[in-house]
Amino acid sequence: MPSATLDTLLVNTIRGLAMDAVQAANSGHPGMPMGAAPMAVALWTRHLRHNPSNPKWFDRDRFILSAGHGSMLLYSLLHLTGYDLSLDELRSFRQWGSRTPGHPENHLTPGVEMATGPLGQGFATGVGMAIAERFLSATFNRPGHVVVDHHTYAIVSDGDLMEGITNEAASLAGHLGLGKLIYLYDDNGISIDGSTKLAFTEDVLGRFDALGWHTDRVDGMDVDAVDQAIVRAKAETGRPSLIACRTVIGFGSPNKGGTEKTHGSPLGEEELRLTKEALGIPLEPRFFVADAAREAFGRAVSQGEAAENEWNERFAGYATAHPEGAAILRRAMAGDFAPEWNAFPEFADKIATRAASGKVLNAIAPVVPTLLGGSADLAGSVNTTLAAFGTFQQDSPTGRTFCFGVREHAMAAALNGMNLHGGVRAYGGTFLIFSDYCRPAVRLAALMGCPTPFVFTHDSIGLGEDGPTHQPVEHLAALRAIPNLHVMRPADGNETAVCWRMALASPSTPCALALTRQSLSSTTPPPGADHPALRGGYVLAEPRDGRVDVILVATGSEVALALAAREALAKEGIGARVVSMPCTSVFDGQDSAYRQAVLPQGVPTVSIEAASTFGWAKYAEAHVGLDRFGASAPAERLFEEFGFTVENVVAVARGLLPMANA
Amino acid sequence: MPSATLDTLLVNTIRGLAMDAVQAANSGHPGMPMGAAPMAVALWTRHLRHNPSNPKWFDRDRFILSAGHGSMLLYSLLHLTGYDLSLDELRSFRQWGSRTPGHPENHLTPGVEMATGPLGQGFATGVGMAIAERFLSATFNRPGHVVVDHHTYAIVSDGDLMEGITNEAASLAGHLGLGKLIYLYDDNGISIDGSTKLAFTEDVLGRFDALGWHTDRVDGMDVDAVDQAIVRAKAETGRPSLIACRTVIGFGSPNKGGTEKTHGSPLGEEELRLTKEALGIPLEPRFFVADAAREAFGRAVSQGEAAENEWNERFAGYATAHPEGAAILRRAMAGDFAPEWNAFPEFADKIATRAASGKVLNAIAPVVPTLLGGSADLAGSVNTTLAAFGTFQQDSPTGRTFCFGVREHAMAAALNGMNLHGGVRAYGGTFLIFSDYCRPAVRLAALMGCPTPFVFTHDSIGLGEDGPTHQPVEHLAALRAIPNLHVMRPADGNETAVCWRMALASPSTPCALALTRQSLSSTTPPPGADHPALRGGYVLAEPRDGRVDVILVATGSEVALALAAREALAKEGIGARVVSMPCTSVFDGQDSAYRQAVLPQGVPTVSIEAASTFGWAKYAEAHVGLDRFGASAPAERLFEEFGFTVENVVAVARGLLPMANA
Repeated sequence: MPSATLDTLLVNTIRGLAMDAVQAANSGHPGMPMGAAPMAVALWTRHLRHNPSNPKWFDRDRFILSAGHGSMLLYSLLHLTGYDLSLDELRSFRQWGSRTPGHPENHLTPGVEMATGPLGQGFATGVGMAIAERFLSATFNRPGHVVVDHHTYAIVSDGDLMEGITNEAASLAGHLGLGKLIYLYDDNGISIDGSTKLAFTEDVLGRFDALGWHTDRVDGMDVDAVDQAIVRAKAETGRPSLIACRTVIGFGSPNKGGTEKTHGSPLGEEELRLTKEALGIPLEPRFFVADAAREAFGRAVSQGEAAENEWNERFAGYATAHPEGAAILRRAMAGDFAPEWNAFPEFADKIATRAASGKVLNAIAPVVPTLLGGSADLAGSVNTTLAAFGTFQQDSPTGRTFCFGVREHAMAAALNGMNLHGGVRAYGGTFLIFSDYCRPAVRLAALMGCPTPFVFTHDSIGLGEDGPTHQPVEHLAALRAIPNLHVMRPADGNETAVCWRMALASPSTPCALALTRQSLSSTTPPPGADHPALRGGYVLAEPRDGRVDVILVATGSEVALALAAREALAKEGIGARVVSMPCTSVFDGQDSAYRQAVLPQGVPTVSIEAASTFGWAKYAEAHVGLDRFGASAPAERLFEEFGFTVENVVAVARGLLPMANA
Repeated sequence: MPSATLDTLLVNTIRGLAMDAVQAANSGHPGMPMGAAPMAVALWTRHLRHNPSNPKWFDRDRFILSAGHGSMLLYSLLHLTGYDLSLDELRSFRQWGSRTPGHPENHLTPGVEMATGPLGQGFATGVGMAIAERFLSATFNRPGHVVVDHHTYAIVSDGDLMEGITNEAASLAGHLGLGKLIYLYDDNGISIDGSTKLAFTEDVLGRFDALGWHTDRVDGMDVDAVDQAIVRAKAETGRPSLIACRTVIGFGSPNKGGTEKTHGSPLGEEELRLTKEALGIPLEPRFFVADAAREAFGRAVSQGEAAENEWNERFAGYATAHPEGAAILRRAMAGDFAPEWNAFPEFADKIATRAASGKVLNAIAPVVPTLLGGSADLAGSVNTTLAAFGTFQQDSPTGRTFCFGVREHAMAAALNGMNLHGGVRAYGGTFLIFSDYCRPAVRLAALMGCPTPFVFTHDSIGLGEDGPTHQPVEHLAALRAIPNLHVMRPADGNETAVCWRMALASPSTPCALALTRQSLSSTTPPPGADHPALRGGYVLAEPRDGRVDVILVATGSEVALALAAREALAKEGIGARVVSMPCTSVFDGQDSAYRQAVLPQGVPTVSIEAASTFGWAKYAEAHVGLDRFGASAPAERLFEEFGFTVENVVAVARGLLPMANA
C-alpha cells in the first residue's frame, strides 16, 4: 500500500473509532479526534518512542492529550498500538466501570500519562515532565552513556492556550529553554461557542515567540507536513516548540465538519453514515479496524520492545561504568529513597514551622539526591531552598532549587508533571492564601494519585500586617474538602518533620503542609517513627488527675494555646485533654476504636483553629475560630482581637460544661 | 518653583511618606512606592480626572494599584490629593482599626477602587471596569451629549504580568480593543527572590503586541517621559495600552536601592536616614509634607469639583434632551433596578435549574437594561445568553452577552470590575468544577463586598459521562467556607428564581448559584416575595400525621430524592420532615428561633447532597453524600452507584432512629 494511502487509512481508522464510540455512548466529543487524527498519526507512527508492552518504561517519550475531551483519540491510539486496552473497552466508552472514561484518567488506563480535561493542565504538567527529563539527563548521563533522553509531546487546543495557567507554564518553559518539549496545537478555529474569533483573536504564535518558543505553522491535515514540523522541532534543542496545525474539526462530516456542532455531541446516526461514506469507512461493523491498519499501528509493539531492550543494554553499560549513579537512578526510578532518608532533625527550641520545614528539607536533601523543590517567588519566605545544591536554570540543569516565578498555578501543575514523570520527588511552596491560585492543579494531583507535597506557609492571621488579602481563613477547610488530599498543619518543628515523613512516604496521596510564619514552642515528641502524629490526631496532654471534663482539639499554632488553656482550666478544677490534630483525613482513616479513644463521644469538645470553623462540627460542638475575613495588624493583636486567647478558650470550654447551664 | 523641581518635590514627598510609614509600622513594602512615585505623579497630577471630595463621582477615571503591596503609594496619593484620609491614618499604617491596611481595601478606604495584593487581580478587574465604561458610553451617550467618558488606569508589576489571569485578561482586552484602558508597568527588574532574570525573561512587550495592545517603553523615573507616554496612549483609542516604565525599586536608598532588599521590609533607621539625605528630604519630622507639595497635590480638590460640576451640567443637558436614557442611567448609577425587576417567571414543569436560570435572566433582561452577562465559552451549557440583546464585541459595544473565552479567572475578575465600576450588573457562568479556576476572584468579590452573581452549572455527578475531572464534589463545601459568599443550590425552577431574586438584591455579598445539568421536578412554591427559600432553608414537607421522627435536609437535585424518601418512610410508619436548604449561609443568618423551628435540636437529621459531606455535621448527624471523586457514566447510573437512592436514604434515616439500635 502506498504510504499516503496507508496514512489515510490510519487516520480514518481513528476517526471511525472515535465516531462509533461517541455514537454508542450517545455522549462525547467526536470532532477533535476527527480533526487531530493526522497529527496524531504523524507523531505516533513516526516519532513517539514508547513501549506498549511496558507503559511505564522509564525512558519513553511522554505524550499528553491536553485537550482531554478528545479522549477517543488517545484511546484509539492506545488500542491500536497495542496497549492493554481492548476494543471492548472502546465499546464501553463513558460507561460505568470502563477504562475509557469521558476524559483520560492515568490511574485507570495504561498508557495515559495524566488526567486531562480541565484545560491548560496538560500543557503545564507536560512542562514539569520536560523539567524532570532535563534534570535527570543532566544529572545522570555521562559521556558515552546516555540513559535519560526523551521528549515530551502534547496535543493542545485553543482552549488550552486561552487558559492563564498555559501562559505561566509557557513563559517558564521558554525561560528554561526546554528544547525537548514539543507541543502540537490543534488549531481548528472552533471553540464550544462557535468560531474562536468570538473571543480569541490574538496572534498566538507571536505570543509564543515572545515567550521564547520555537514556533511553526503547518497544514494539520497533512501527515507529512506535521511529520516534517516535528523533525524541525526536534532539531531545535534550545527552545520548546509550538507547532500550530491548522485542522478541520469533525473532518469528513459533510454537514457538521468545521463547526462547533461536532465538538461535544455525537454526530447522529444519519450524519455518521454520511461521514463514513465520505471518508470511505465501512458503516458496519462498528469499531472497524482494517487489517492493514492494525498491522501498521501494531508495529509499535516490536519497535517499543526493541527500544526498551536497547535502552536496557545501554543502562547495563552505564551501570558498569558508573555504578553509583546507576544505583541512585535505579532507586529514583522505582520511587524509593535511600534507607537513611527519614533521619529527621529534632526540634527542641522555638521555631516557625515554615523554618522547621526548610531545615527538614535541607537535612534530607543530601540523602535523597532526586529531591527537588522551589517556590513561586517566595523562596525566602516559604523556606523551600536546598541551600547546598544550586538553582535549576537553563545553564545549570543539575540545580535542585526551582524559581517558578509568580506563577502558582503553573508551579503546582509542573510539580505534578515532575512527580508523574518519576525519578524525582518535587515539592513547591507559596503562601496558603495562594493555594487558591493553584487549586485546580492540587485537585488534579489528588484525582491522579500524584503525591506532590505542596508547602503552604503563612497559614493564618499569624501572617499579620499584610492583611485580609493575604490571610487564609477558609483555605484549610477548602483543601480538606478535596478527596485524597492530606492537609497537614503541624503544631511545632517535630510535628513538621513527622508531616514531611508522611508526605514523602505517601505513595498516591498529595499533601498540603500548612505552616506558620510565626515561631512556635516545641510541644510534641521528637519526630521518630513512633510519633503519635503519624495517626493524624492524638492525645497530646491529659488532665493531671485523669478526669477529662472537656477536650480541646487544636491544630498548628493553636496547639500551644490549647495547652495554655488546659493549665488555666486546671486552676478552675476543670480537667482538659488536649488533642493535636495535624491531619484530619489521616485521623479519619484510623480504626474507630482509636478515634473513639482520642475523641470519645459524649465528652464536650472545643475545636481551636485560627481559621474558619467550617467542617469542625464533625469533631467538636463548640469552636474557637474565625468565620470572617482577617485584618491588617500585628499578629499578636489579631489573635487577641479574634479571640485566640486563653481567656476566650476557657470561656468557650466552660460554656460546654453542665455547670454552665445550671 | 520650576516645574521639574516641583515634580521632584512631589515625587520625594511620596517617597518620604512611604519610607516613614513602613518604618513606623516596622512592616511593609517601601521599594515599590519609591520607584513608582514618578509615574504616579505623572498620572495623578497631569491626567487622572477624579474628585477627592466625592470619591464615587460616577464619571471619574478609575485608578487601580494592581501591585497592592505598594499600598503606601496609593495612601500617600489619596492623602495628598485631598481624600478623606488623614496623616494620622498614614501614621497608623498596618495597625488594628486603621484605614491604611497592608494592602488596599476598597470597603475601608475612600478612593480605593478595589482590594489588591493577590497579583493579577487588579489587572483583570480593571479590564472589567473598562468594559463597563465601553458598554455604558456606547449605550447612553448621544451626539452632543457625552455623559460616560473616562479612562481606567493601573500600575502593574512584573508579578502581575507573570500571573496567568493577567494573560487571560490581556488577551480579552486586546480582542475587545479597549482603547481607554491604560496600564503603567513598573518595570523594576526585581521580584521577591531577586532579579526577575531568575524566572521572567520573556519579551513582555512582544507578548502584549501579540495580544493586540499598544505598547510603549519609557524611563519611569522621568515624570515628563511618563506623561508623554500617557498622552500617546490616550491618543490610541482602538487598543489598550501597556507602558513599560523602567524604574529603580527603592530609588534613593544608597545601599538597598535597586535590590529586592527594599521590596518587603523597612529600610531600617540608618538606611532611612541615608536615603532621606540622598533625596534631600528632611529626616524629621516624620511624614513631612512641604507646603508647596501640599498645595500642588491639593489642586486635585478644586479641579475635581470643577470636573464633576461640569459633568453635572452636561448630565442635565443630556437629561433634557434624552430624559428616558437619563432616567435609566441615573437608576443604574445608583445601583437600582426598575420596580418591575422582580416579576419572576413561575416554573410548574420539569426543568434543569440551569435552564430555569436562563429563563429568569431573559425574563428580567428587558426590565433591567443594564443587566449583562456571559460565560467562559459555555454559553449553550450554562444558559447565560440574553437572547434578545446581542453580543458585546468591539464593533457591537451595546451587546449584553459576553464571550469571555476559556478564561474563567479573568471572567470572574472582569465581572467584579464591571460591578465595582457600577452602572451595570454583571453575572458570568461556567461549570461548577471550574469555580476552582476563578476562586481567587470569587474570594476577592466576597472580601470587597462586590455582589457579583456567579453562575456555576453542572453542579454534581449529574453531569454524567464527562467524568471526575468535570464533576464537582468538594466545590460546594469549598465555596461555602468563604466568608460573605452566598452559595445557592436551588431545588427547582422556582427556587432558582428566588435565588436570582436574592442574588440581584444583594447589596454587598456575591452569590454562587449551583445549578443542575439535569431536569428537576417542580417541588416548591411559585417564586413570590414570600417564598420560604428567601430564608435560606425551610420546611418543605411535613409528615402526614405531624410527628417528626427524622428530618431529611437536602439541597438542589437531592430535594426531590428527600421527598421520595419521605413517602417511603411514611410507608414504614416513620414521619419524615423534608427541609430544603438552598443557602446555608442565609439560613445561618436567621434568628435562632426560626432555625430551631426548622431543624430542632434532638431530632435525628440526615443531610442529602450529591457532594462532599464536609461541613454538614453542623446540621445533621448522618449523611448521604459523596466523599470521593466521581466517575464517568450516565448520570442515573452514578446516582444509583453512589447511593443517591430512596432505599439508601431510607436506610440511613432508619439507622438514626432509636428502634434501629434495639
